[in-house]
Amino acid sequence: MADGAFCGVFPYLVSPVADDGRVMDEPLTRLVDHVIAAGVHGLTPLGSTGEFAYLDWAQKRRVVEVTLAAAAGRVPVIAGVAATTTAEACRQARDFAALGVSGIVAVLEAYFPLSEDAIVDYFTAVARSVDLPIVIYTNPNFQRADLTLAAISRLAEVDNIRYIKDASVNTGRLLSLLGRVGGRIDVFAASSHIPAAVMLIGGVGWMAGPACLLPAESVRLYELCRAGDWEGAMALQRRLWRINEVFAKYSLAACVKGGLELMGIPVGAPLPPQRPLDAVGRAEVEAALAAARGEG
Amino acid sequence: MADGAFCGVFPYLVSPVADDGRVMDEPLTRLVDHVIAAGVHGLTPLGSTGEFAYLDWAQKRRVVEVTLAAAAGRVPVIAGVAATTTAEACRQARDFAALGVSGIVAVLEAYFPLSEDAIVDYFTAVARSVDLPIVIYTNPNFQRADLTLAAISRLAEVDNIRYIKDASVNTGRLLSLLGRVGGRIDVFAASSHIPAAVMLIGGVGWMAGPACLLPAESVRLYELCRAGDWEGAMALQRRLWRINEVFAKYSLAACVKGGLELMGIPVGAPLPPQRPLDAVGRAEVEAALAAARGEG
Amino acid sequence: MADGAFCGVFPYLVSPVADDGRVMDEPLTRLVDHVIAAGVHGLTPLGSTGEFAYLDWAQKRRVVEVTLAAAAGRVPVIAGVAATTTAEACRQARDFAALGVSGIVAVLEAYFPLSEDAIVDYFTAVARSVDLPIVIYTNPNFQRADLTLAAISRLAEVDNIRYIKDASVNTGRLLSLLGRVGGRIDVFAASSHIPAAVMLIGGVGWMAGPACLLPAESVRLYELCRAGDWEGAMALQRRLWRINEVFAKYSLAACVKGGLELMGIPVGAPLPPQRPLDAVGRAEVEAALAAARGEG
Amino acid sequence: MADGAFCGVFPYLVSPVADDGRVMDEPLTRLVDHVIAAGVHGLTPLGSTGEFAYLDWAQKRRVVEVTLAAAAGRVPVIAGVAATTTAEACRQARDFAALGVSGIVAVLEAYFPLSEDAIVDYFTAVARSVDLPIVIYTNPNFQRADLTLAAISRLAEVDNIRYIKDASVNTGRLLSLLGRVGGRIDVFAASSHIPAAVMLIGGVGWMAGPACLLPAESVRLYELCRAGDWEGAMALQRRLWRINEVFAKYSLAACVKGGLELMGIPVGAPLPPQRPLDAVGRAEVEAALAAARGEG
Repeated sequence: MADGAFCGVFPYLVSPVADDGRVMDEPLTRLVDHVIAAGVHGLTPLGSTGEFAYLDWAQKRRVVEVTLAAAAGRVPVIAGVAATTTAEACRQARDFAALGVSGIVAVLEAYFPLSEDAIVDYFTAVARSVDLPIVIYTNPNFQRADLTLAAISRLAEVDNIRYIKDASVNTGRLLSLLGRVGGRIDVFAASSHIPAAVMLIGGVGWMAGPACLLPAESVRLYELCRAGDWEGAMALQRRLWRINEVFAKYSLAACVKGGLELMGIPVGAPLPPQRPLDAVGRAEVEAALAAARGEG
Repeated sequence: MADGAFCGVFPYLVSPVADDGRVMDEPLTRLVDHVIAAGVHGLTPLGSTGEFAYLDWAQKRRVVEVTLAAAAGRVPVIAGVAATTTAEACRQARDFAALGVSGIVAVLEAYFPLSEDAIVDYFTAVARSVDLPIVIYTNPNFQRADLTLAAISRLAEVDNIRYIKDASVNTGRLLSLLGRVGGRIDVFAASSHIPAAVMLIGGVGWMAGPACLLPAESVRLYELCRAGDWEGAMALQRRLWRINEVFAKYSLAACVKGGLELMGIPVGAPLPPQRPLDAVGRAEVEAALAAARGEG
Repeated sequence: MADGAFCGVFPYLVSPVADDGRVMDEPLTRLVDHVIAAGVHGLTPLGSTGEFAYLDWAQKRRVVEVTLAAAAGRVPVIAGVAATTTAEACRQARDFAALGVSGIVAVLEAYFPLSEDAIVDYFTAVARSVDLPIVIYTNPNFQRADLTLAAISRLAEVDNIRYIKDASVNTGRLLSLLGRVGGRIDVFAASSHIPAAVMLIGGVGWMAGPACLLPAESVRLYELCRAGDWEGAMALQRRLWRINEVFAKYSLAACVKGGLELMGIPVGAPLPPQRPLDAVGRAEVEAALAAARGEG
Repeated sequence: MADGAFCGVFPYLVSPVADDGRVMDEPLTRLVDHVIAAGVHGLTPLGSTGEFAYLDWAQKRRVVEVTLAAAAGRVPVIAGVAATTTAEACRQARDFAALGVSGIVAVLEAYFPLSEDAIVDYFTAVARSVDLPIVIYTNPNFQRADLTLAAISRLAEVDNIRYIKDASVNTGRLLSLLGRVGGRIDVFAASSHIPAAVMLIGGVGWMAGPACLLPAESVRLYELCRAGDWEGAMALQRRLWRINEVFAKYSLAACVKGGLELMGIPVGAPLPPQRPLDAVGRAEVEAALAAARGEG
């Protein structure tokens, strides 16, 4: 990992949107302050948890503007770019670069299946459209175009493609990936992996929704891993894992939005037709947070 | 099927887009004239074949405007609405209604999984947002939210939800559906079903990309089915089926755009990172078209 | 379809097994008499419905012996062969041939994935091990090795591979198959397809569990199709389809065994840990049978 | 983990079968001696790698007899039981118990889908049929009945169900499982997980085919993990992982059999229609073994 490289805990920020479609600046600003105060290493607006798939461009742009203003340079902001067409993705990346983000998380949305060549073209074009480090992101559960190890190896040849965030559940795949492109590409885990296990095998951190709800605990876990205190890390990891289980069961956005509401940050509901957590889900999130904080 | 109801062959029109993102009016107008001259019963811009998932709103709006102008009231135009949020889908539907379309094909795009209640909410809201007949559309291969028979039964209670287009490969499912909601909802087949078989079991027509390339043959097949000449229908159906096979193998948009190019209607390539048909694919489309026309 | 070829309705017979593992001759004999009296064109012991995957060799052999004795040459008996190894499948086929069956339905069970060459080897070896017509059988829902069109085309070159039974839900695939190997291979539908639709596109009949419960109605449907009375066929097909829907919902063996029990043929329960139909399932089967018989 | 409990490296032994179907005692005996000499903690005949799905009962019984004779009490032998019916599984378990095995790995094969109750019934019955510790085994890639966390929690209530071997790729699932039933059930990893990562989160060892080829290195990895030397463990794990990658790409049985052949233990080919490794596959296995031994 080079000097100045991204590492550590990057919360996937939710996108607070009012019923009339307006981005709500205040709770987003409070969320940013909350997680930075807890010591997180960066911010990721417009990830899965940030409902990128549900926002129009004006909303996306506003989320990034508010996040940048709130962060005020204290930590890097890596904004999510997602599109079905190369042209639209490059435009989004350039516009975010002009706003002042520190990096791009690039997602490929797809409807018809794509060849590996087409997938490589897309990510390469996004990378070339800006002078910023790129995190390529693959989520085989929710996206229709998965990144194979062969595609990732080709993308690792592009200068500014420097990171991958993998939201599969296959931790062994990350070790294979590090065996092939480690040194050229650093690996961030998602909430579907065990962060401590990914750190053990060579990951540099995680980008995930739960870190909005448990930022201090997440940072503590990261520090224990970096210090090589694996027993200590696992003791904490066991307590934290329950929130990841809840996330896997409900929608990510509904969980984090519901949990922030419980914590007094009123970020609103996921965009309809998505639904907010029901009473049972809220109770599960509450119990998991209490357990994670050692109150359970 | 009530008087004035939609039935017959509705080609899924491609969306000709130039390299600079501009919708190309001229080839789209020629395509509309071509299929109307061949006797098709209606037009469906912004279906899967119309690359709805790859166009921004300005492009979508322009495709519908050009289609309406070219059709000039000769046949109904049923425009595709597709979104992840209810608000955006309703807005699209209202705007298309204002442009003068005769009906809406409604698609639900999704990222996170949705409950059946949420799915029903979405389509119900779209239907209530306009005073037009609605075709609900489900494509389990490419969309992340499938319509179960239970959901369809609930949607059939909404007054102006009058049709379903099913792009599964499961023809038996259509018979089950007709057993449950036949009389309230009419069924259109997609290119993944055998049109003659769907007509036999009670379908009212098909909405599909191949009808752009073989409009006269498609209309002839429809007429044989309506006349109850099933042996004649199957003789023609066998010749036509090969083009559906090619479609299942390659991307729909690439196939229809490639085929129209071969027929002298230069509609351009699918939007990148999608790729146009390669030489092998073009030869397959050409051979399938020749076979369908009885030249093979 | 050559003279002497198989066609028509072949019930997939259940395998009545007592709690102590003994095959129960009496209800199996009664079942055979019942369906032959209703006019079925052949019998298929040891298909999916016959729980081939749950029986040991002694049980399988006994089921075939009893079926042959009961049929007494009145209709052909096509016995199911199923194994993971080529050697075992060939042995089963030879032993059934020695018992006097008229043909073999060949199933490939698999644990590890197989190459197409290995799949073709297996079926070819089974075909060469006997001097009987072979039905190759593919069920992508329950078997781990599907037959692609390419594999089927290769298998159609083997002299005595004369039929395919397809238990996918993809009716279009059958038309593609007929386009490629029609004339060399005849197609039987399974209960996942609409029999009348498969007959329309060129099928020769169906091998399916529901024909145990509705043999006379199934034969009537077949005759209407053969006579080209497609409207009449569809009127009957609509009434019969509900039983196929119930079959898709519950286990095939549990449905047919439960239905025969209702009809007074006590064939026992599916082998544990499988469970018999519960009260709700039995009521659904009963209602579907009543509807099929025009009593609903 | 109680005194006397199973832990450590348990190679999944291959089943050497000659062309005529006879189990080959000599190479199996040599394999057993080879892995015991390298320090493995137990033996597992008739796992996936042992081709349990391809052997008849006489072959299975012989494999266990030869393994027991060769082990001569030096390490525990845990034999694989696999069936679709409860009765057959219990019979296998009792017969293996009578032969003198130390435990049972229980697999549920399935054709029709099963309810959770039926799945729990099966494993409970197997456990109650013998007075031996039971390892329940789930492999969602190759088996049709997966064990949910809810089912595992219920099975953990059965006294002698003491272990689970999980062959999913989802390492987070193992942490969830330990959070629910840790203390009552110990977890063994399969070759689809990273052994060092599973040890970190609380696993007690692994049962896997690669340990036939790299027994000394596997034991060394286990000892580093047990000593809490996680950096040392990961350094070795990285070298060993490549063989797991090759295993995921080819059939497990073909890989281990091919690798043993290369090492001078002629165990023969997988049972047809499975195929042995081709030249490319053999070269990959050879290179992975050299890398694992630090010769790469």
